Amino acid sequence: MRTRPLKVALLGCGVVGSEVARIMTTHADDLAARIGAPVELAGVAVRRPDRVREGIAPELVTTDATALVKRGDIDVVVEVIGGIEPARSLITTAFEHGASVVSANKALLAQDGAALHAVAEQHGKDLYYEAAVAGAIPLIRPVRESLAGDKINRVMGIVNGTTNFILDAMDSTGAGYQEALDEATALGYAEADPTADVEGFDAAAKAAILAGIAFHTRVRLDDVYREGMTEVTAADFASAKEMGCTIKLLAICERAADGASVTARVHPAMIPLSHPLASVRGAYNAVFVESDAAGQLMFYGPGAGGSPTASAVLGDLVAVCRNRLSGATGPGESAYAALPVSPMGDVVTRYHISLDVADKPGVLAQVATVFAEHGVSIDTVRQSGKDGEASLVVVTHRASDAALTGTVEALRKLDTVRGVASIMRVEGE
Amino acid sequence: MRTRPLKVALLGCGVVGSEVARIMTTHADDLAARIGAPVELAGVAVRRPDRVREGIAPELVTTDATALVKRGDIDVVVEVIGGIEPARSLITTAFEHGASVVSANKALLAQDGAALHAVAEQHGKDLYYEAAVAGAIPLIRPVRESLAGDKINRVMGIVNGTTNFILDAMDSTGAGYQEALDEATALGYAEADPTADVEGFDAAAKAAILAGIAFHTRVRLDDVYREGMTEVTAADFASAKEMGCTIKLLAICERAADGASVTARVHPAMIPLSHPLASVRGAYNAVFVESDAAGQLMFYGPGAGGSPTASAVLGDLVAVCRNRLSGATGPGESAYAALPVSPMGDVVTRYHISLDVADKPGVLAQVATVFAEHGVSIDTVRQSGKDGEASLVVVTHRASDAALTGTVEALRKLDTVRGVASIMRVEGE
Repeated sequence: MRTRPLKVALLGCGVVGSEVARIMTTHADDLAARIGAPVELAGVAVRRPDRVREGIAPELVTTDATALVKRGDIDVVVEVIGGIEPARSLITTAFEHGASVVSANKALLAQDGAALHAVAEQHGKDLYYEAAVAGAIPLIRPVRESLAGDKINRVMGIVNGTTNFILDAMDSTGAGYQEALDEATALGYAEADPTADVEGFDAAAKAAILAGIAFHTRVRLDDVYREGMTEVTAADFASAKEMGCTIKLLAICERAADGASVTARVHPAMIPLSHPLASVRGAYNAVFVESDAAGQLMFYGPGAGGSPTASAVLGDLVAVCRNRLSGATGPGESAYAALPVSPMGDVVTRYHISLDVADKPGVLAQVATVFAEHGVSIDTVRQSGKDGEASLVVVTHRASDAALTGTVEALRKLDTVRGVASIMRVEGE
Repeated sequence: MRTRPLKVALLGCGVVGSEVARIMTTHADDLAARIGAPVELAGVAVRRPDRVREGIAPELVTTDATALVKRGDIDVVVEVIGGIEPARSLITTAFEHGASVVSANKALLAQDGAALHAVAEQHGKDLYYEAAVAGAIPLIRPVRESLAGDKINRVMGIVNGTTNFILDAMDSTGAGYQEALDEATALGYAEADPTADVEGFDAAAKAAILAGIAFHTRVRLDDVYREGMTEVTAADFASAKEMGCTIKLLAICERAADGASVTARVHPAMIPLSHPLASVRGAYNAVFVESDAAGQLMFYGPGAGGSPTASAVLGDLVAVCRNRLSGATGPGESAYAALPVSPMGDVVTRYHISLDVADKPGVLAQVATVFAEHGVSIDTVRQSGKDGEASLVVVTHRASDAALTGTVEALRKLDTVRGVASIMRVEGE
């Protein structure tokens, strides 16, 4: 074994960073044996240097992250700051000064992954980011490497623990969205400002990353259709139960049937209770991958948290250190397929639509005509009346999102349709 | 991209091999783009050369596998023959003549993995074998690489599709073992001689491989405790149902509580219906991995079959080809921890024991005394009588297998115990 240690610079020392530092210390011998050389924490860049950081020598702590990544003797920079800047500049500078990078930064990778990969490649360095998607769950490596000889057609998963916790609570207790969110906040599963989670931004970033590696195509955050889950109601869960379904916030990356384009989207959807994703509870994550040869695979585990994310970071750290020792680099960006990313209108799926309608003869015929005119075939209709008002629940066969949108617009114009109570996609059948 | 192709020799062209050859042809462009150079099928060694093999040029087919691996211009040998010989000699010869090897051979790797790794390392070549465990499910790579910075404490899974198909059929139809086996054979899920599957040899080989990589310790097939599932009865399933459980054939690799030793075992066990492994149906496989930092992870998918196994083989092929191009090698054997493998007697778990006893006063007291004398604490007892005979179902708290074995031996000696109807371990609680 080489005795001269590999030097690691840690950018950020919050929940994840402090756990990375702790494991690097407590498991130093194991890491050295697995890498083939010891690893040494050479510096830790933080914003608040006065905070006590157990187990980290005070002389390693600095507020000057730029100087740290510019030192020139750093082998690997571990970036767990999050956000676009200064993370992007620091990673770029790290490559320019000879380091490889392990990042957990989904927002940055979804937005600027291609540019960062280009800088890494230019300098012959590694950019690894297993921790950016689904926390501890090995997903980037299996999709990028284990399935490298296969053709992936679909990636569908629960990739945000906060929203899954909220939806699971709504499902099991009958609570409304706000009540469930309050519980999640009280228990530390939701942040004070939960926007990134509940509006689907976090899941959309992960969808962009997953779609990119699954389809060997650049998929940016802007390419991902995004719908949050703040408007999911207790009534939606009641409707789902009647269908033998539950509701999950899903990230879905699909190859079109003709293989010539891809789509990526995040939205709440009904899925059958018999689907493995339906039984993913609490803050857990799970991702289904469907490919030509392997068939259906599922990966399940904790999608966030300090320790699980640190596990993923350290797995990458070991790989990158091994690459440094052997003078090789791991797989870089693979975007050769360069498939067009189609808009949401091209997505084909089923829909569950609840309408408030006038309780009089002929309404169903009117509504059915609108669906037919837009080429959306109806699977089932359920009608229930109360005091001159009636509700109509329509479940469609597979149709394009554009056709469904057109249908709903036309329905809204009908005098007999008082309102569209909810539209929910039905997946996983 | 390099234009000179990497040359691949295929040993075996059965269900898996023919699928590997097919995908290499149909997906040649994708493979080339992902590897950075084209791959060419340079030879196919078979036993029966006269068989028609669609899509494989007849001039590539040979019966002389040894000459093929000795050619010297082969970059990667893909071994999908199975069995110990001639596979072992061919792989060794391949390394000696400059090739890296991708193998799907669980029996060989469980028996001689250390020796083969040593030859590979001596010649600076790769030995990859994702397909040897759980078919298409990425498991070797995630455990060996993604979790390389973590400490794995337990690997527990369903790693044999044939036995899971049989047990699932028994569970859902109430069929007996023979009836379910006959169905599995008729549907092609069980081989004409099902011994390797139903007696747990196949699962034990996979357990040895998984324990080795999870604990960085050499675990050979002989180290794995093995109990088949041919004696599982419909009555056992009825007992399991009463406990809110089902029965699965599990491979379990554990680190002892003190961390100083490991165990590996394969046997039928009751697991709670709420456990994710309980809902693994048909011939599917699933493996739970528990580690310090990542927590609980699960990997699920098809555990066998030509296409899924080919997917795993091709993923390895891409990785090995990339390594060839960069002049590096992937992770080799990691056995530095060299932990002792403890015998089955040291395993600690819970037990479900059904006894046929005389229906008279004092029997329960006698039986309870025997458990107490052997230090096995009882959780619940259920007694039911019929015509002077009675049955007693005892569920224990956690106890060592040695203590349980001693208890059962002593119970057999009691006049009032007519027989021990079944002993089943209870896992996953």
